Amino acid sequence: MYYAMFCQMKKMLGQLDKCLDAAEAHAKAKSFDPNLFMAFRLAPDQFGFARQVQVCCDTAKTAASRLTGKEAVAQADTETTVEQLRARVRSVIGILEGYTAADFDGAATRVVSTPRWEGKVMSGADYFLEHAVPNFFFHLSTAYAILRHNGVPLGKRDYLGALSLRAP
Amino acid sequence: MYYAMFCQMKKMLGQLDKCLDAAEAHAKAKSFDPNLFMAFRLAPDQFGFARQVQVCCDTAKTAASRLTGKEAVAQADTETTVEQLRARVRSVIGILEGYTAADFDGAATRVVSTPRWEGKVMSGADYFLEHAVPNFFFHLSTAYAILRHNGVPLGKRDYLGALSLRAP
Repeated sequence: MYYAMFCQMKKMLGQLDKCLDAAEAHAKAKSFDPNLFMAFRLAPDQFGFARQVQVCCDTAKTAASRLTGKEAVAQADTETTVEQLRARVRSVIGILEGYTAADFDGAATRVVSTPRWEGKVMSGADYFLEHAVPNFFFHLSTAYAILRHNGVPLGKRDYLGALSLRAP
Repeated sequence: MYYAMFCQMKKMLGQLDKCLDAAEAHAKAKSFDPNLFMAFRLAPDQFGFARQVQVCCDTAKTAASRLTGKEAVAQADTETTVEQLRARVRSVIGILEGYTAADFDGAATRVVSTPRWEGKVMSGADYFLEHAVPNFFFHLSTAYAILRHNGVPLGKRDYLGALSLRAP
């Protein structure tokens, strides 16, 4: 299940990649600079669009690292354009592609900590369910919401992507 | 993992319940009718706040039903006040409390369908990962975003709730 959820995150980062294309196309159609999206936000004291995307990416990347014990590549949050943000998203898709199902053996019982927890820890299972998954979807959905709020023509299908539907 | 994720959804619906309290308190402090929140939305062609909460609730409730084979109680989307919306959230928390880990035995290999899929089906595993989980967090995060956008003083902790942190 851990590996399967990270595959799903990878798929949804692919959808985010397409949403960035849609944002650029919308800006072009309306003759405004697509990089204005980088700072758009829903509330003055909430992260702007670029930061939502960065944190979404980092949540997937660091969670995979913490749950497998494989080191995460550090990435500076220096993106100033949608094009650079797309490269960040694609780099994390590439990083997630480097994991196998076997990497997540024993993930549930790993001891996980983050610098924010002041020395405290969580089990891998609790960290995954209570922190990693809710945060990933939070920042992904908020990034999507910022685009929708600013007129980018997106629908739920752009968020979910294609479903594995089959004949009964 | 299925049961654990539904326990997490139940916890997060409890956080949504508290967010509704915060919305009401904010409206009171600013002297406006809290039920105005029901129709607030981030884009004209996106669901308003009440519908986001209803769909979030329904996603958890119907997913638990489809993955266990236990019938879901139908609920009409007739809420017009924040108080009624809170009752809806609490009712779904109560419904989720009725499930046990054993109910989810075999969930991954169940055959799942919805009226929207025109006769097609998904495995329980695919449905859970590709549809139920992403949709639940999407509508929860969007409901939260609508409150944040309208000035309700909430932070990420109100979304996540308390973490199972412990000493190392």
